[in-house]
Amino acid sequence: MRIVALAGGIGGARFLRGLRAAAPEAEITVIGNTGDDISLFGLRVCPDLDTVMYTLGGGINEEQGWGRADESFTVKEELLAYGVGPSWFGLGDRDFATHIVRTQMLAAGYPLSAVTEALCDRWKPGVRLIPMTDDQVETHVVIDDPERGRRAVHFQEWWVRMRASVPAESIAAVGAEDAKPAPGVLDAVREADAVLFPPSNPVVSIGTILSVPGIREAVAAKTVVGVSPIIGGAPVRGMADACLTAIGVETSARAVAEHYGPDLLDGWLVDEADAATAEEGIEGMAVRSRPLLMSDPESTAAIARAALDLALELKR
Amino acid sequence: MRIVALAGGIGGARFLRGLRAAAPEAEITVIGNTGDDISLFGLRVCPDLDTVMYTLGGGINEEQGWGRADESFTVKEELLAYGVGPSWFGLGDRDFATHIVRTQMLAAGYPLSAVTEALCDRWKPGVRLIPMTDDQVETHVVIDDPERGRRAVHFQEWWVRMRASVPAESIAAVGAEDAKPAPGVLDAVREADAVLFPPSNPVVSIGTILSVPGIREAVAAKTVVGVSPIIGGAPVRGMADACLTAIGVETSARAVAEHYGPDLLDGWLVDEADAATAEEGIEGMAVRSRPLLMSDPESTAAIARAALDLALELKR
Repeated sequence: MRIVALAGGIGGARFLRGLRAAAPEAEITVIGNTGDDISLFGLRVCPDLDTVMYTLGGGINEEQGWGRADESFTVKEELLAYGVGPSWFGLGDRDFATHIVRTQMLAAGYPLSAVTEALCDRWKPGVRLIPMTDDQVETHVVIDDPERGRRAVHFQEWWVRMRASVPAESIAAVGAEDAKPAPGVLDAVREADAVLFPPSNPVVSIGTILSVPGIREAVAAKTVVGVSPIIGGAPVRGMADACLTAIGVETSARAVAEHYGPDLLDGWLVDEADAATAEEGIEGMAVRSRPLLMSDPESTAAIARAALDLALELKR
Repeated sequence: MRIVALAGGIGGARFLRGLRAAAPEAEITVIGNTGDDISLFGLRVCPDLDTVMYTLGGGINEEQGWGRADESFTVKEELLAYGVGPSWFGLGDRDFATHIVRTQMLAAGYPLSAVTEALCDRWKPGVRLIPMTDDQVETHVVIDDPERGRRAVHFQEWWVRMRASVPAESIAAVGAEDAKPAPGVLDAVREADAVLFPPSNPVVSIGTILSVPGIREAVAAKTVVGVSPIIGGAPVRGMADACLTAIGVETSARAVAEHYGPDLLDGWLVDEADAATAEEGIEGMAVRSRPLLMSDPESTAAIARAALDLALELKR
């Protein structure tokens, strides 16, 4: 069986770990979001790809969900001693090595997809991890900065430095319209028995992946099941509500599914807290309710299994 | 009083610390060797400049003489876990930050001299540290590699990886003939009351600095006093003998002075072990003997004071 999953960072990575446990024989291809990528200190940082790689490879800091376990911050402290920031982005010493290797390979001319494959040679995540594109796409957020007026900032500045405390007026994946899917992305989707949307951010993770020309169309042609990142009107984790508000979508399991739309989604898993949505149904898709809190590996695997089962059921 | 010193790494840096203590009111300009510079992991590493900066700035690992005190090696270990080397060059986490800042500034278009000044803003070495050139000069060593035949290797590969165990057939400062002295170098020499040669390597440190067109002529026009890096037929530290042999110069205090020549050197300090050289004299220069072991800060300052005093005496 071949499964494709579109994934952002922490939530996506945890879901994927559950999926790998739930379907150990499946060939899983993960299409990772690169819109959050940022160049810091001259190094190329791919937070979502790395979170997936570290989580599935056993190197993640389990408590915070991103970055390396057993991490130290000597390089960052020394950079700050030189007056070189930003201070708000947490790059640890172990993590730095990943970015140094990536940057060196990119400078040597390798595309990001080849670099990601080389990094995964070490981590052996048990899935094939492909960035959505080898082209540069950067998610920018337009805010009305209390200090500096209306301006566009890199997603990470809004998300990490400001903790999304300033409302986003709009969110754009800059460069997406000219980007091409990375090699292997469209083939993996075409050959998939099912495409899953983990409970990743529908706007800046899955939405960004789908904004790369060709990916949405390829995905829409398959049986697609998504897991709601919204439980009872609030994001399971992160600040997805701030992103949804920016694009005029209500923070509810129903609104997110309707935003994806029945042309894209065939099935939608909502939490028991949103059982009413499942009962009322959504035109053009199969909606099921079940517990969706990924509180431990077993419950996460059960959620992934339920998403996969629904996809296989709908495919028949 | 204005003093210019040409300096390599460990020996030069320690001498300079003594000089700063011996002449606290003097304006000291240090012209640093950059022929040992190397790009590792996509980062620009300037071992001699950094050794001077760390030593005079209080950040050096006193025991080994290079690298940072209280250092850790997490980044390097992680790079090796990715299969990315070399393993033989000791870059610590604190040190990495220096190279990251430098590389980022160079990539932004700043010349190495401006980068060095910016790094020294943090370290406040108490001297003005200028690289010999902003152009790329790399010392290459031709060896008859037992495994791979005759080939040219980067100085660091011969010096650090092979520990100079394979004889050097020749040593060349590649790029030197087209290099220009960095801004400030020639002015500092012209305005100097004395030019000092610390007990740095006469071939790959001071020799390389002098190989940048214009520097030798400017230095030769001044009162120049050198401190012998050879005591009783052996280098005080390091493997200067291997470099001297490669250029056909005997490893002795006399031979090194004669290699520099009386056109360049006005005075030469040798150790008491080489008192005979002082008694016999060298045509065209004043030779004095005194203890030259830089065993502690006080004795080092006394050596520097003796060199300076001899220069001031010869200038009259």
